[in-house]
Amino acid sequence: MLERMIQKRPPWLVASPGVPAIAISTRIRLARNIEAFPFPGRCSDDQRRDVISAVTEAAKGATALRTAQLLMIEALTPVDKQLLVERRLASPEFVRQAAPAALLVTPDETCSIMINEEDHLRMQVLRPELHIDHAWSSVDELDTQLEESLQYAYSSRFGYLTACPTNVGTGLRVSVMLHLPALVHEHKIGGVISAVGKIGIAVRGFYGENSEAQGHLFQVSNQVTLGRGESDIIRQLQQIVGRIIDHEAKLRETLIKNAPHQIRNDVGRAFGTLKYAEILTSQEATELLSVLLMGIDLHVFDEIDRATVSQLMIDTQPAHVQILCGKELTTEQRDLERARIIRERLNTRADHA
Amino acid sequence: MLERMIQKRPPWLVASPGVPAIAISTRIRLARNIEAFPFPGRCSDDQRRDVISAVTEAAKGATALRTAQLLMIEALTPVDKQLLVERRLASPEFVRQAAPAALLVTPDETCSIMINEEDHLRMQVLRPELHIDHAWSSVDELDTQLEESLQYAYSSRFGYLTACPTNVGTGLRVSVMLHLPALVHEHKIGGVISAVGKIGIAVRGFYGENSEAQGHLFQVSNQVTLGRGESDIIRQLQQIVGRIIDHEAKLRETLIKNAPHQIRNDVGRAFGTLKYAEILTSQEATELLSVLLMGIDLHVFDEIDRATVSQLMIDTQPAHVQILCGKELTTEQRDLERARIIRERLNTRADHA
Repeated sequence: MLERMIQKRPPWLVASPGVPAIAISTRIRLARNIEAFPFPGRCSDDQRRDVISAVTEAAKGATALRTAQLLMIEALTPVDKQLLVERRLASPEFVRQAAPAALLVTPDETCSIMINEEDHLRMQVLRPELHIDHAWSSVDELDTQLEESLQYAYSSRFGYLTACPTNVGTGLRVSVMLHLPALVHEHKIGGVISAVGKIGIAVRGFYGENSEAQGHLFQVSNQVTLGRGESDIIRQLQQIVGRIIDHEAKLRETLIKNAPHQIRNDVGRAFGTLKYAEILTSQEATELLSVLLMGIDLHVFDEIDRATVSQLMIDTQPAHVQILCGKELTTEQRDLERARIIRERLNTRADHA
Repeated sequence: MLERMIQKRPPWLVASPGVPAIAISTRIRLARNIEAFPFPGRCSDDQRRDVISAVTEAAKGATALRTAQLLMIEALTPVDKQLLVERRLASPEFVRQAAPAALLVTPDETCSIMINEEDHLRMQVLRPELHIDHAWSSVDELDTQLEESLQYAYSSRFGYLTACPTNVGTGLRVSVMLHLPALVHEHKIGGVISAVGKIGIAVRGFYGENSEAQGHLFQVSNQVTLGRGESDIIRQLQQIVGRIIDHEAKLRETLIKNAPHQIRNDVGRAFGTLKYAEILTSQEATELLSVLLMGIDLHVFDEIDRATVSQLMIDTQPAHVQILCGKELTTEQRDLERARIIRERLNTRADHA
């Protein structure tokens, strides 16, 4: 399954034609625990295996997981583990642990459950673009169907109980990935982060908690769930995300109006470097591809189609490069192979154009 | 004449096929003064005009100047003046002065005399590659023929007298332009400059005195002429230049052997940036073109022929860009037009390849 995974474009990355491309994807996750077991951090290995069995059994009744497969984390190679992180199906902490843990995931990757992460269940729904309502109804249905077989840890006073107090209550985290090159370019992203931080909204890098922003990609998500209802959390996040998108869109218009040559220059240089570099780190590749995306969205660049670029943002991550090459690679080898993959795809497209 | 000038490739830049391309060109100049006049700095305008007449008259007897034209500096536009500097036919100080001064120059630019620079005559011969003997015999013949009509200021004790003591004696400066990207890349150029400095050899930037190195181009020349014969100066410079060329050549071999990907990476990125940038300063263009030249010389790059690249190193200088565009331009406009010219030429060549 993991080898097949990188052959195709994740559905949550497929943007509709004509839709403003600032919101890349929407992710909703629910944290749940089973009443009969201690939190994973305090479970024995046997108990953790029982949790995996219980969740897998319950998942048979869930419509969204009909086609899901079970991946035992201990059976995965280091590259496969990293691949799951890069595909946003697993947290780095989840795949790093030695104790029994498993991932239930559908072939299209839009629905998954980390079993024995910090909580027994971390169920996740991924959707392209800004579709919070759609993602919410999917994960809510999944949660309801699982609850028919699982007795969740629940307090009538606090709501759903979780290992970390920040998740107690709804266990809900709504997270929208935004592409914000203009806010970064104009040094306004810091102001946005601190402003929304004051009302309990976090802006994080591509890989979530503690990660740096890469390629001008930011995850905007709610910080706190305790004492708030799901609809309240969702409505607030929709408002904030809408405002950030407006800000980015206006800034892009201003940039292209006031500094068209500078934008064309940035985009052209990014393309030239990607097309002819022999060595490219993951971070540089992501950042240059992000600039190209902006160029395409602003209609100043059309030598490459958007799908090729956003696919490369996924495929040039370290584990993806190794799986595309069919072997483990050192950092130096990855940087060479990454540049080769990019050169080939950009040249192919350029010839077609 | 000045408009015509940039249509063609200066003959001193035309390298023979197969010749190691480290030595770009050889220049020899002789400083001479006419006994009957004070040095130019102390001449009245009338005296300076008389000097111009005397030199022009004497030049009629010089074989090398048969086709030469006389350009009065005061009649030139600022752009034309800058063009002469960029073509290495005039010093910045020479074209900057308001007092009467003139340039005698052959259409192929290989032979010229600045009249009323620091000295009454600064005669110059330019040759492609490393041809010190050839250049010397040309300038020596020119000097002899001029001396038939002109009474030079000469002291039997010191030799030829010049305005600046550093030129007293032979008035000779031999100067070889070297392309030294590997020495720069490996941070060894500083050591070379200080070592040869101790034995009276100067290593300067592209435009001579007080100028910074651009595009890894360095002029190596003798500092002192007093108390030394011409053949002594020439022999020493030939030796030193030969050693620097060997050093650069060996370092290039080492680089391509030990770090082939790094070299290809540098060269590829330079090409990509030149091909797709929308804004390019003169300095950045020269440096990137220089990296391309190295790539071509090291046989790691063949998308563009060497002649196109070395021609662009000339044509992307500020006055050249303005004359190619047929009008005066601001710095911002020049950076845009420079990038456009480069994009066009690189794309044309790539299509032919």
